[in-house]
Amino acid sequence: MDNILLIASSENDSNIYYASGFLAPDSFIYLATKGKTLLLMSDLEVDRARAQSKVDPVLSYSDYEEKVKESGEKPTFMAVVSALLKEQGITDLTVPFNFPLEYGDALRALGYTLSIKKEPFFEARAIKTPDEVTAIRNAQIAVEKAFDETIAILRESKINGNHIYWEGILLTSEFLRQKLHLKMMENGCTAEHTIVACGVDACDPHNVGTGPLRANEPIIFDIFPRSIDTRYFADMSRTVVKGTASNGLKKLYNTVLEGQELGISRVRAGANGKDIHEEICALFEKRDYKTGRVNGRMQGFFHGTGHGVGLDIHEHPSISRRDCVLQKGEVVTVEPGLYYPEIGAVRIEDMVLVEENGCRNLTTYPKFLEIE
Amino acid sequence: MDNILLIASSENDSNIYYASGFLAPDSFIYLATKGKTLLLMSDLEVDRARAQSKVDPVLSYSDYEEKVKESGEKPTFMAVVSALLKEQGITDLTVPFNFPLEYGDALRALGYTLSIKKEPFFEARAIKTPDEVTAIRNAQIAVEKAFDETIAILRESKINGNHIYWEGILLTSEFLRQKLHLKMMENGCTAEHTIVACGVDACDPHNVGTGPLRANEPIIFDIFPRSIDTRYFADMSRTVVKGTASNGLKKLYNTVLEGQELGISRVRAGANGKDIHEEICALFEKRDYKTGRVNGRMQGFFHGTGHGVGLDIHEHPSISRRDCVLQKGEVVTVEPGLYYPEIGAVRIEDMVLVEENGCRNLTTYPKFLEIE
Repeated sequence: MDNILLIASSENDSNIYYASGFLAPDSFIYLATKGKTLLLMSDLEVDRARAQSKVDPVLSYSDYEEKVKESGEKPTFMAVVSALLKEQGITDLTVPFNFPLEYGDALRALGYTLSIKKEPFFEARAIKTPDEVTAIRNAQIAVEKAFDETIAILRESKINGNHIYWEGILLTSEFLRQKLHLKMMENGCTAEHTIVACGVDACDPHNVGTGPLRANEPIIFDIFPRSIDTRYFADMSRTVVKGTASNGLKKLYNTVLEGQELGISRVRAGANGKDIHEEICALFEKRDYKTGRVNGRMQGFFHGTGHGVGLDIHEHPSISRRDCVLQKGEVVTVEPGLYYPEIGAVRIEDMVLVEENGCRNLTTYPKFLEIE
Repeated sequence: MDNILLIASSENDSNIYYASGFLAPDSFIYLATKGKTLLLMSDLEVDRARAQSKVDPVLSYSDYEEKVKESGEKPTFMAVVSALLKEQGITDLTVPFNFPLEYGDALRALGYTLSIKKEPFFEARAIKTPDEVTAIRNAQIAVEKAFDETIAILRESKINGNHIYWEGILLTSEFLRQKLHLKMMENGCTAEHTIVACGVDACDPHNVGTGPLRANEPIIFDIFPRSIDTRYFADMSRTVVKGTASNGLKKLYNTVLEGQELGISRVRAGANGKDIHEEICALFEKRDYKTGRVNGRMQGFFHGTGHGVGLDIHEHPSISRRDCVLQKGEVVTVEPGLYYPEIGAVRIEDMVLVEENGCRNLTTYPKFLEIE
């Protein structure tokens, strides 16, 4: 990684945000070479980038555009990038897997050699600093405050038939999702597509849930906001029942909880995510919860056990079918789930910090199934 | 565009969202060939994609993984994609400019021919249907409701020295931004980095603004939320003063307003965005407002006049230095601004729908400078 070139919008690409510390809606150019870093920014962003980014120098795109014009060339975007690279004496570049193909082709046509580095492009992004752990924990505090309000609403609610009423309002997925979003926004976090999924909806792990919530059926909450200030995410799932859970559902819940506790107990530096995932799969199999397609639909445990959390909601490392050795300082979710349309759906998720000899749970919200 | 291949996360890439109508946090595979479209989805998403996407068929990634394994090959991601392409008899593919370089290289190494199509990748994305215009207008309604609350707060506020107090609270950029975000969330929209920038902060067009707002100085609001439900954006800017504007600022405001009205009057199908932008630049020059670097900082009018709005906040077309002929059905902003640290900063922005012989303003919020 002698010379790194990134061209992306930092609102959509966390590598360039991580490298530059600068948030902008449009693509810009980041270059790291010979121990220094620089940005090439449009007139619109150049002064703000000088004030806010962690990169120095911040160069003016229009200055390089002028240089290209003066040389008699057409000042296309790639001609401007190339003028910068030539000035820096660069011929070889390392780029991320998602570097735009058009730019890759153009740079190669201009004689540059590109090496693609897979994720994690910046290894350091996976290993969280104490400040990054604090940022993630702060987002998690917003999750827990918001979920606490939701649980209070469910406690105060009355059951009538299959439905749940709070202060006379019929509780729906949409209503509680909105409450969660507003409460998290009050605490500096933005969230979309928070999952509040009941009954059959919940059997599809990423179904956000719609319509009236039903008493005595599982409701899965999966809450994963981003801090507006730090841009770090948090991620937590809980499964609750307003009223009484069936015996089948209780057994399912206890099995998922057992799997989750097993997973958490296995997380430590040096552990292979694949081994952890397979141990949980084996436990579920042993408890007679099968995974596979039934009547054309997936059921059982058909997603990964966990993923890294940071500037992206899903990032390196993974605890899944793939080999992936955990390292000290990574923040990962542990979130097994079991989904059976005939019994119900349960997912329980905490975020933990990988340590030398174990892990520290960054999630402090209690786990319980039934709410009276 | 015989065969289109997209591989992206629809939360970060609007082309694959537009094509599939399916929202997912992780990358998935979209293929259009011979008049049909298909998705290749992980076990986690396959059932939800069948229920929610507008694509049929939705195929199972793990089925193709099995096929690759049975053939004796290693089931890498690219081997699985290639198995699908082979089955469909495809050798040539059209991909967007930002197709990941790693996948582009891998597909070419496997013998596929890739053509890159620049933005707008889907021409139809720029031309909004009536439903899309309604979605944008609905997001704009959320903007106007939220901004109305902000203006009410400023009206009710008292000036003390340079500062502004509402119900005894010192008004800051952060306070009003939070109010705007909460109000827009109540109306189904999510927003981040809403600009509430006062005085010198406002001279940097994308500075979000921090700290106490000051009386008798311009405050720029730039509000651009996304509807959680439809994923369409809206975008509006207004500049106001709590108290009294200086004569220099009033003249600046009136000039920007004149430029904006000129721009809006020129928007119609067939007009070149470049001509509109240059006409506004010429007006500002004629009014003696120069653009360029002064003491190393950009001042004057140093951003584009406007951009398309839709599933992205900045999308095709543009009203800027670049040639770009407007087409009926496009939604564009018209947002000239003038920025002088010594006088103040003004930006005024509406969103308009391009029509045959003019445009329809989708922004109904009034324009005024001073608030008593």
